[in-house]
Amino acid sequence: MRTAILGAGYMGSAIAFPLSDNGVHVNLWGTWLDDDLIAGARDGCHPRLNKAMPENVHLYESEQLAEALKDADFIIVAVTSEGFVPVFEKMLEALEQPVPLLTVTKGFVSIDDTIHTISGGADVMFRRKFGDDIPGWVSIGGPVKAVELSNKIPSATIFGYRGDNMPPLFDHFASPYYRIYSVPDVTGTEICSAFKNIYAIVMGICDGLYKGTDASLFHNFKALLFNHAIREIAFLADSEGGQRDTAFHLAGVGDFYVTSASGRNGALGRLIGAGQPPESAYRQMLDAEEIPEGYHTMQLGKPYLETGDAERIKSLPLFNCLYRIMFEQAEARKELFAFASSWDTLGLP
Amino acid sequence: MRTAILGAGYMGSAIAFPLSDNGVHVNLWGTWLDDDLIAGARDGCHPRLNKAMPENVHLYESEQLAEALKDADFIIVAVTSEGFVPVFEKMLEALEQPVPLLTVTKGFVSIDDTIHTISGGADVMFRRKFGDDIPGWVSIGGPVKAVELSNKIPSATIFGYRGDNMPPLFDHFASPYYRIYSVPDVTGTEICSAFKNIYAIVMGICDGLYKGTDASLFHNFKALLFNHAIREIAFLADSEGGQRDTAFHLAGVGDFYVTSASGRNGALGRLIGAGQPPESAYRQMLDAEEIPEGYHTMQLGKPYLETGDAERIKSLPLFNCLYRIMFEQAEARKELFAFASSWDTLGLP
Repeated sequence: MRTAILGAGYMGSAIAFPLSDNGVHVNLWGTWLDDDLIAGARDGCHPRLNKAMPENVHLYESEQLAEALKDADFIIVAVTSEGFVPVFEKMLEALEQPVPLLTVTKGFVSIDDTIHTISGGADVMFRRKFGDDIPGWVSIGGPVKAVELSNKIPSATIFGYRGDNMPPLFDHFASPYYRIYSVPDVTGTEICSAFKNIYAIVMGICDGLYKGTDASLFHNFKALLFNHAIREIAFLADSEGGQRDTAFHLAGVGDFYVTSASGRNGALGRLIGAGQPPESAYRQMLDAEEIPEGYHTMQLGKPYLETGDAERIKSLPLFNCLYRIMFEQAEARKELFAFASSWDTLGLP
Repeated sequence: MRTAILGAGYMGSAIAFPLSDNGVHVNLWGTWLDDDLIAGARDGCHPRLNKAMPENVHLYESEQLAEALKDADFIIVAVTSEGFVPVFEKMLEALEQPVPLLTVTKGFVSIDDTIHTISGGADVMFRRKFGDDIPGWVSIGGPVKAVELSNKIPSATIFGYRGDNMPPLFDHFASPYYRIYSVPDVTGTEICSAFKNIYAIVMGICDGLYKGTDASLFHNFKALLFNHAIREIAFLADSEGGQRDTAFHLAGVGDFYVTSASGRNGALGRLIGAGQPPESAYRQMLDAEEIPEGYHTMQLGKPYLETGDAERIKSLPLFNCLYRIMFEQAEARKELFAFASSWDTLGLP
């Protein structure tokens, strides 16, 4: 069994570990932004994971895409949402026939001024090349931190799939330290993955507001926000045609838990809570090569939600509160306290 | 409007703050274990909350129960589960007529060798005095840490109620910093409140296992446990005749979030994860007057679950794993890793 992983960052590289343990032939391809990562891995230490890649993982530089893809039984796309469209298009150029696809990319993409989910955008591009011969698809959800996966710390993750040919592939990923729970719900899984990154920012803002005061005094507030975020995610999964229950499982509750506890979106929020203007905080993180995906996801997510049922965004008071803080110069403390003290906001569908 | 709060510990005292702000006449009664708390509060500083009680809160020592209860429009019981039966019986002796009851007590009680939920036990005792004239009831869930409530940090809490006469009372509790979300689901709320204390122990054990190694390396494992605990709680709420959704709201997701992040049950777990035998760790905390309620709740919870549908406990692999660690000398690391790597355990109902 052969696979090509496109993107040699945190997750693309980490997911090679259980695959390698299961004897899969893994080609790990780095994008044009990953040359230093591939070079480091070649020298015996992947710069992000800070460890050697398994021996049967084969490394490919950005200009070697066609070779990396050759004879792949399935392909894993592991780039950021901003890199997804250019990488997917290059991949399609090199492919001669449809191949089952899995992705860890989370968020939204814009194609010809229309905003799509990741799977929706992939479908548009796929059809242009192969017509209606759409292959199976898996949206890999969380909760899995890459560094921990590469250290084989036990984790469980959700695979939201479509296509009856996909579940047999999951055995190639599964291991005692990487458990797969699969649901035939691509939509719900994608919504959870995208929006947990968004709501992790507001958890970070709450941390930032209280840090330096008395750090023990904000559990109630964070629990309120955590709970409300999960309710809004469940509402969204349902309104998009996914399963509400997916939000109450690994893709939602589990992944939001780990993303809130640790990660780049929370770090962005903490800077904002401590008083830094959102765009400046975002630029600072980009300069450090730490991409908080929730920022871009939110920029695309709002217009995405406003197309279709334009009314539903009114059912998302926490999302709207965060949007005002992030993009409309609203003062974080004032907005969050107003959210917390408004009495109609917990009556979610 | 007058209320009597029975129990002057953390939550009994903290809930007096929003009531006082709303102009309710509050009588705060301390049990025979609370004399030092009442004395401290009289001297201007409640020893647990580390602050003065509001001026219109009236303090009563343990021998003044009848006076404290006089003319109460509703009563709030705020003692530990181990103190619930004796306090409730004394209260009933002093009552001349049924009064609406609310409680923050979480767990199970044993009456004449039968184990009951808190509301179930209260019903048994109530009927003995007043027959079928059962008053309205509220199980107050979380997520609310008492010290934060008394400092007016925003929080939201679930009131699981029965009785149409109860919702009008909630306005006396509600404030911009203490939001009430009510559901007509006493059963689901009680199950969540009891079991989140149990599962918080296993979160602490996971912390304890990894602390001292590399503390950044256990988010995946904790997220797996967090998610699975919520699924088991939802299964239990449903199997008891409560609403499954209650577990996915403040009583479950929200309260388990805050209980996992901070609290006495997690502290007990951390001692065990670090290698201390469970009973010794429990005794150590009791000696420090910090009661991790999950321990006693688990002792009663297992036989409670085994009566009724004896099969259902098989659907709770994480509960059983924790029970073996706590009461059957199983080795924590080995048990938890076996749980995490067993493939059939995520397929919850």
